[in-house]
Formats: sequence, C-alpha cells, structure tokens
Amino acid sequence: MKKWSDRKVKAYADMTKDELLAVKEDLIKSYEDVKGKGISLNMSRGKPSPEQLDIVMDMFDVFNRNTDFISESGVDTRNYGELTGIKEAKELFAELLDVEAKNVIVFGNGSLPVMYDTISRSYSFGVNGSTPWNKLDKVKFLCPVPGYDRHFAITETFGIEMINIPLYEDGPDMELIKKYVEEDEAVKGIWCVPKYSNPTGSTYSDEKVKAFAALKPKACDFRIYWDNAYAVHDLYEDDKDELLNIFDECKKHNNEDIVYEFASTSKITLAGAGIAAVIASEKNLEWYKKNMTIQTIGYDKINMLRHVRYFKNAEGVRKKMKEHARILAPKFDAVIECFDRELEGLGIGSYTRPKGGYFISFTAMKGTAKKIVEKCKEAGMITTGAGATFPYKKDPDDSNIRIAPSFPTLNEIKEAAELFSLCVKIVSIEEILKNK
Amino acid sequence: MKKWSDRKVKAYADMTKDELLAVKEDLIKSYEDVKGKGISLNMSRGKPSPEQLDIVMDMFDVFNRNTDFISESGVDTRNYGELTGIKEAKELFAELLDVEAKNVIVFGNGSLPVMYDTISRSYSFGVNGSTPWNKLDKVKFLCPVPGYDRHFAITETFGIEMINIPLYEDGPDMELIKKYVEEDEAVKGIWCVPKYSNPTGSTYSDEKVKAFAALKPKACDFRIYWDNAYAVHDLYEDDKDELLNIFDECKKHNNEDIVYEFASTSKITLAGAGIAAVIASEKNLEWYKKNMTIQTIGYDKINMLRHVRYFKNAEGVRKKMKEHARILAPKFDAVIECFDRELEGLGIGSYTRPKGGYFISFTAMKGTAKKIVEKCKEAGMITTGAGATFPYKKDPDDSNIRIAPSFPTLNEIKEAAELFSLCVKIVSIEEILKNK
Repeated sequence: MKKWSDRKVKAYADMTKDELLAVKEDLIKSYEDVKGKGISLNMSRGKPSPEQLDIVMDMFDVFNRNTDFISESGVDTRNYGELTGIKEAKELFAELLDVEAKNVIVFGNGSLPVMYDTISRSYSFGVNGSTPWNKLDKVKFLCPVPGYDRHFAITETFGIEMINIPLYEDGPDMELIKKYVEEDEAVKGIWCVPKYSNPTGSTYSDEKVKAFAALKPKACDFRIYWDNAYAVHDLYEDDKDELLNIFDECKKHNNEDIVYEFASTSKITLAGAGIAAVIASEKNLEWYKKNMTIQTIGYDKINMLRHVRYFKNAEGVRKKMKEHARILAPKFDAVIECFDRELEGLGIGSYTRPKGGYFISFTAMKGTAKKIVEKCKEAGMITTGAGATFPYKKDPDDSNIRIAPSFPTLNEIKEAAELFSLCVKIVSIEEILKNK
Repeated sequence: MKKWSDRKVKAYADMTKDELLAVKEDLIKSYEDVKGKGISLNMSRGKPSPEQLDIVMDMFDVFNRNTDFISESGVDTRNYGELTGIKEAKELFAELLDVEAKNVIVFGNGSLPVMYDTISRSYSFGVNGSTPWNKLDKVKFLCPVPGYDRHFAITETFGIEMINIPLYEDGPDMELIKKYVEEDEAVKGIWCVPKYSNPTGSTYSDEKVKAFAALKPKACDFRIYWDNAYAVHDLYEDDKDELLNIFDECKKHNNEDIVYEFASTSKITLAGAGIAAVIASEKNLEWYKKNMTIQTIGYDKINMLRHVRYFKNAEGVRKKMKEHARILAPKFDAVIECFDRELEGLGIGSYTRPKGGYFISFTAMKGTAKKIVEKCKEAGMITTGAGATFPYKKDPDDSNIRIAPSFPTLNEIKEAAELFSLCVKIVSIEEILKNK
C-alpha cells in the first residue's frame, strides 16, 4: 500500500475556491457515471456473507435419525430440562472465553435477546434483589461512543438515560467512567464491546480492563455489560488483538459480581441459528436462574449439542474462524486500500484499521456524515444510518459512519469503497466551500 | 371396564369405624409392600416419553451439507433477518390452527417464553400504547382453576393479583368472567387452556368460546391468553373434542384484538427443540413487532425450516400426532382403568376422563391432597405438588392433584396408578375416621 507521505496530495482545506470547484466538477462527473450504473449495495449491517455461512454446512451432517441425543450428563436433549443449557455447551464457551463452566448459561439464537432480557429483568425485578429499576426516578447507562446501535436501542426503550463516553483506540475514557460509576448511584450500567469494538474495531488495553475490574460502583446494581461479540473474530493470524480476561482481574479485587459477559456463535456458525451465552459470577447467575425458571422450560438443547458435537472443543472453533478470516480480511483490506488511495492526506476524514470484528469506523468532517450517507444512498449504496452509532441516534458532531464490509462480494466492496470515497470528497468540498 | 353400578362397593363414609380400621390395616400392609420395593416414579410434569421423541427422529435426515436453506420468500434462513419468522412456518401454524399466515409470528423453542414476554412487555410498555402495567396501582388476572402452574407463576412474578374462576367440564364460569372483565378496569387478562385443559382435560364448549369472543372489556388492554397447547393432541381418533375457532367468533363482534393465541410444537416434535407461535390480530402483532425489533434480530430460522420441510403441511403433523396417540392413549387408559377398579364408588374422589392433552385431574376429599401427595412421595412416587394447579399454589379445598401419565412406561404407569389409589384410600380413611 502506498504511504500518504509518498504521494502528492494537497489537503482540500488548503486549496483555493477555484481549485476546489474544478476538483468538484470532476468528482460530480464520476458520481453521475456511478449513479448511471444503477448499482445496489448494502453495507448497513454486520451480516456474514453466504460464502461464510457455507463454511459450516457440514454441521448438518452431524445428526441423523440414528443419533444418540443423550448429553454427557445423561440428559435427553430432545426433551424438557436443563434450564441453563447442557454441560458440554457450557464447557465449550468456557474454554473459548477462558472461564469456568459453572459461570456459564447457554441460550438460544443470538446474544441480543440475552442482553435485552437482562435489562428487562433489572427493570422489572431489580438486580440480585435490588430495587426494580421501574421503581426508581432515574436510571442511567454509560455508552462509549461510537458504539452499537442495538445496545442503545435497548436502554432507550426502557427509558434509561444514556450518557456518551468518548471511546479511544485503547478503550473508553476510564477517568470519566470512574467518576460517574463511583459517584452517581443512578448509573446502573455501561455498554462495552471490549474486543474489535463495534464500530471502531478497537480493543480495550490491559490497563483499561484492569480499571474496569477495579471500579467501586456507588450503586449495588451497577454492572458492566461486556458484549464480547468478537472474541475469536480475528482477521489476521499473525496480527491479533488480545483482550485481558476481565474475570481474572475482577477476582483480584473481589469484584466478580460487577460484570456480565455476553457471547454467541452468530458469527461463528450461523447468524440465523446459533447459540448464545452469558458468563457471570455464580451469585449473578443465581439471579438469572431465579427469573429464567419462570420465563422458560429451556432453550433449544439440540442446537447446543449440534454445536458441541461439530466443534468438539475451542480448537475446532478457532479452525473455522480462520476460514472466516480468509473471506473477510480481503474485504477489509480492499476498503482500507481504497481509502488510503483516495482519501489519505485530503484532511477530510479518518478511519480505523481493525484487526478483527465486523466494522470499519469512518470519521468525516463535522456536520457531513448525514449528507455523505444520503449521497451514497442516492447512488444505490446503503450504509448504516448516520448517527446510528450514538445514543438516541444523535451524533453530536454528525461525523461518524459505520462501514460493514462483510456481506457484499469482494468486487462489490471495492465498488462500494470507491463510491463512498467519492461521496466523502464531494460532500467535504461542499462543506469547505461554505467558508471560502 | 367394569361399571361402578355392577360392583359391590360400599362408600367409605358409610362404613363403621371398625370396618374402616380393618380396611385400613390391609391397605397399610399393601402400602408397606410397595414401599419395600423401592420404586422411583415421576408423574409430576407433562413430559413426552423417549418413545414419543423417537417418532420424529427422521427429522434429522431432512438437512445435510447440500441442503438449500433458502426459504420460499427467498430468504437465506442461515443468516440474520425475518424477525417474525419465515413465511412457510407461519403458513404451517396458520393451516393447523385455521387462521391466516399474516396473523402469525413464529418464535424459538417453547410457547412459555412467548407468553412470558407478552406479559413482560405489557408490564414494561403497556398493550398497543396503553399505560404500562408497572405504572398502575393494581393489575388483575382471571385464572380458571384448576389450571397450569407455569401460567400462574408468570403473573405472580409480575405482582399481578390472580382471581380464581371455577372451571367446569365445558369451560370456565362465563358469568363470573363477564362480570369481572366488563366491570373492573384492573382486570387485564385471563389464562385459558381451551382444549384438553391442563390439568382437567376439558374443552371449552362452543357457547363458552362465543361468550369469550363477545366480551366487552372495561380495560382497553384486556386480552384473553388463549394457550392452545393441545390443539392437535387427541388421544382417540374416533372420539375427539372440537374447539371452536375463537378468531372467527371475534370477527363477528369486531373484537379481534381481544385475544392472543399461543401454540408450539413442543409436544409434536421435540420438547427440547421445537418452534412456537403467537396468533393475533394485525394490530396486536404490530405491537409485538415494535418491541421484538429491539429484543432480537430473529429466532432460529433453520429449525423453523426443518419443521416445515419435515411436515410439509398440517396433514403431515396430524399423521405424526396419531403416532403420539398410539403411545399415550394406553397410558391414560391404564390410569382410568385402575381408578375405576380401585376407587369408583368409594366416595373418596373423582377424576377426569380426557380425550386428549397430557393430564388427568384428580379431585380428592377436601383437605387430603397434600397428604396423598406426601404419602405417594414416601413410597417413591412424585406427582405434581398439591396446590400447584392454583394461583399462589393455594388450593382452597386442598383437593386437586394433577396426574401426568406421559413420561413413565406403561408398566410404570400401572404401578403408579395402583400406588396412587392406595394412598388416596389410606389418607381418605384417616380423614373419615376423624369424625367417627
């Protein structure tokens, strides 16, 4: 890849009005050409491609009419029972996430409903016996931004006030978090995607994980909602981020009740038919169980067993993740390569270079994100809505755009990145021209 | 089967004290014999037997690595999407329950979580825009009794006051229901198992279904929770109960928003890996969707597709239900045969003769149910706890016991019915002796 320093690029802000107008004229021509092609691209959601789903198709050979469906602990997985999931599924998640199986509950498809239910339960019944949140005047959540829109949608739905916390390359602003958590009893939680964060792709540093584990919350019902959605979702085998195990750190502070960790196989096996897990202290899980026993007789145990029999162990999962990486990495590379080539040095935006996960985060000039998204849409390309990465869909700078390169084909991704760059350039010039 | 009128039986109440003591002595001997055998029987839950689960084992041959997982509407069921379930799964439930597919949402394993979520949603957010129940001073539910313990557990958990409504052979006391529903705005719902009721096995008559459909609730957020758990669960091919379609009746009164119907394949395919559905008006389902879109990205669509490809249509389901009946009917018959032989005419209890479902309901002498259950337990047989069939686990008469004959083998069932009869006799004699 060309380095910016090797190239002859003049920042748009340094150009004269005439220079800008000339550049813009060329850009508009290219844009109209693309528009004329009538393309249709969707980069709005972190959705696996069909090629990725094909990776685990042999999973459907695992069971047949002669299969023995008895679990290792002697349970007939076809029948009722095992409210908290089968033993071997707990063990698989435990091995993957380096925790103990006794700290795991396994659920059905997707971790989102597990997170939703956790908030819903706290709202209706409190946390480990605390006052139900619906009886409190005010409940607040901290939200590192940019973040995951579906997290924010849950807390917004339950009328929880969300407070933006800046997210840096090594994790969120811990000083600010510490202040809120340790001084304000209304602060009941923080949403975190600690590894390959949605949408920035950044991973929390060891220091930040340690700081989380050492928090002394004012509220007894404060919890860290540690959505470890991309725990094994590396793009490059020789260049991975490592996330410190927060439970190990919590133990050092006798602080194990402070965190709920969430995970799922949605982007390991099938987004439409995976299994999910929560990892938490035994005390926290007792509270889960107390409520779950009213809510359900049990989640789909056959699919749990299918996953375990298929993968056998964590190594089996990691092997498959390499196949995902082989498909995903070139797509991420194509976007970055295009941005480096088209945008670097122009002073009109920055972007992340994730080593895993599902997203690239683009930070445009202040006040231009909505216009860029609109411009892309006009030419047939859907990105995640501008603002979606912030609570209440309000990006105070109107600058962040989430790019999801997983679903389209590599050729489509290349086309999309070109179009996106074009739109960023045109909108940025228009913005700069306002002050020329 | 012998008819009571043909047999020489003297009611216990008509015996002298000496006669009773003599009978009791014999019974105690038999009881001690059974106890000595060290049996272990569980008739506590409506759980399919392994033999029943075997019926659908060929379901696991339906998919393999070469399967085309694209749904009829072109959706890749392996991926995200289809929040409300795949089209063909909606159509299968629609055909089975004689409703339109547009009125169906399909979920994951079990209908219990669907019912729980419906109550939880009403508690947190109201019903179609009404005041959330957690903001109201008082919320009440009507509970036909005896009924399903897990229904009552949900409403109890949400602090909803439960009111007992007598359940007769043809359905609950509609006059009482009408009075409560039409006069008390705090009454927000009623739990119903309208066909092969849990635990009595009774089916609501056409007149009662019509009366339900014609209710004019005082509360706009009142709903009938129509748990049609045993819609196709007949025991005898030539002697079935027919339940009137409540939606057809509701239409006549322009009253389609009044009911949520719930169903699942838990006792059709696998209790550990089925699919569930809610059936409701489009307006009601809009409210479901509004909340579901925050809660989940979608339920397991592969399992939905597996069910549809396996059964093909409602006829495919009905065929399999006949196989269930062939296993279940002899177990029900064995219990009834034993009760007829051992208990009829003694004046110490009555029992239902269900034509479908999963339970037989036994009504013992007032104040003896707990003692009977205890006596059974002492000899190694677990039944559903006395009182479980009533809200707050409080049977005002302490007389109802739910018997679940599905799980044990036929021989075990016979043994269990004998032991149960023995315990009923002993406890009843002790009760009668108190007044001799």
